[in-house]
Amino acid sequence: MRIDVITIFPEVFEPVFSSSMLGRAAEKGLVQFVTHDLRDYASDAHRTVDDYPFGGGPGMVMKPEPFFRAHEAVTADDDRPATTILLCPQGAPFRQDTAVVLARAERLILLCGRYEGFDERIRSLADLELSIGDYVLTGGELPAMVVVDAVARLVPGVLGDASSAEEESFSMGLLEYPQYTRPASYAGRDVPDVLLSGDHARIARWRREQAIIKTARRRPDLLRDLDLSDAERALAEAQTHVQTSEERT
Amino acid sequence: MRIDVITIFPEVFEPVFSSSMLGRAAEKGLVQFVTHDLRDYASDAHRTVDDYPFGGGPGMVMKPEPFFRAHEAVTADDDRPATTILLCPQGAPFRQDTAVVLARAERLILLCGRYEGFDERIRSLADLELSIGDYVLTGGELPAMVVVDAVARLVPGVLGDASSAEEESFSMGLLEYPQYTRPASYAGRDVPDVLLSGDHARIARWRREQAIIKTARRRPDLLRDLDLSDAERALAEAQTHVQTSEERT
Repeated sequence: MRIDVITIFPEVFEPVFSSSMLGRAAEKGLVQFVTHDLRDYASDAHRTVDDYPFGGGPGMVMKPEPFFRAHEAVTADDDRPATTILLCPQGAPFRQDTAVVLARAERLILLCGRYEGFDERIRSLADLELSIGDYVLTGGELPAMVVVDAVARLVPGVLGDASSAEEESFSMGLLEYPQYTRPASYAGRDVPDVLLSGDHARIARWRREQAIIKTARRRPDLLRDLDLSDAERALAEAQTHVQTSEERT
Repeated sequence: MRIDVITIFPEVFEPVFSSSMLGRAAEKGLVQFVTHDLRDYASDAHRTVDDYPFGGGPGMVMKPEPFFRAHEAVTADDDRPATTILLCPQGAPFRQDTAVVLARAERLILLCGRYEGFDERIRSLADLELSIGDYVLTGGELPAMVVVDAVARLVPGVLGDASSAEEESFSMGLLEYPQYTRPASYAGRDVPDVLLSGDHARIARWRREQAIIKTARRRPDLLRDLDLSDAERALAEAQTHVQTSEERT
């Protein structure tokens, strides 16, 4: 997979694309990251990428021409068909199932605008507009990193242990069960006995129950479309009447 | 405001905290960013921060001790009361209203774990657990950057033009109206005449209507709790029966 990013801040992507999981994916040749400075596609000596909004109002609006020029040049740089994504607050909510679909693409081109505003015509370049959440950010750079991280880890071979991707929150539709590592006792709290029992069937059952309990208490909205047994459904419903001191959020 | 980040990847924060809006906020002395390497709080020569999960299973789990030690040291480094936030998939969904509340804090401490898993006891350090969206990421670093960006821009004085923060998507509960800048005609599409009319009342009305139309078509869920006039409500409801070619998402 090749991922191109068009942005006025290419330098913020460098350490993100070269460290941790993304860095290893690039080293293995599984994902190629290419960043492009939008200002290289401006047409004046000042490398201007924004201008005043028609009709007035606060803030500047990103100009259409640099995006159109950059997108044309970047598209032509590789034969593989590309899906172009515009990161913006008006986009479709990005979710794990979007990441699963995008992970099958041969090529993604991400367009990052400053969120103050960009010319409406820029949207016509995008096959898909995505929003990573209902909060206001300064630009599309952090959303682009989030999409890249969520997608790249699903590309086959990127995660060393394939099962690691599958057991995590949202992958199986539930929040993850509690995890513990050594020491068995720390900060006045002990690891639950079941995890020390060596009884793998009992451990699997406990983890599934804990995942249901945690999801029912914290994100009951996630349970709605899930395929639970009658006993599991009852366990989930019992949680709506419980408020423990552990639940601060 | 002071923002501390505890992470095993302090280097990815550097360019984000020093460029653009966050860089200007730091330069003006409005927000102070301090990153801490979690590995500095490990107790062995290998600076180990993770270990195998009790009960088995794929992946590693982040150990409790380095987080407890780091959090204690970082908390003691400043007298101001701190709100500690753990970024994790099981957290409360982060939204714009959370950012508004957090922007009033004197001090935030953000704990970033690898999302493969961290010891459940680490949660007891947090006043608040936050998730930025329903997708699986490699770690809490990108979510921490997202929270910092959304919060810092709301700190008084950070954005040059105060009204710029207020007119944006989600701030007024609607997606933003279409913006246009020069040229008036580009890529076969013209700027709407109304924006060139100079009639500010008409422009304001058009923008409000366009914001309602865009929100009704793309994110009808956002309209539910909004205070709309009868005419605006009717305009929104009319959109549910329209599908234009522009709406790809």
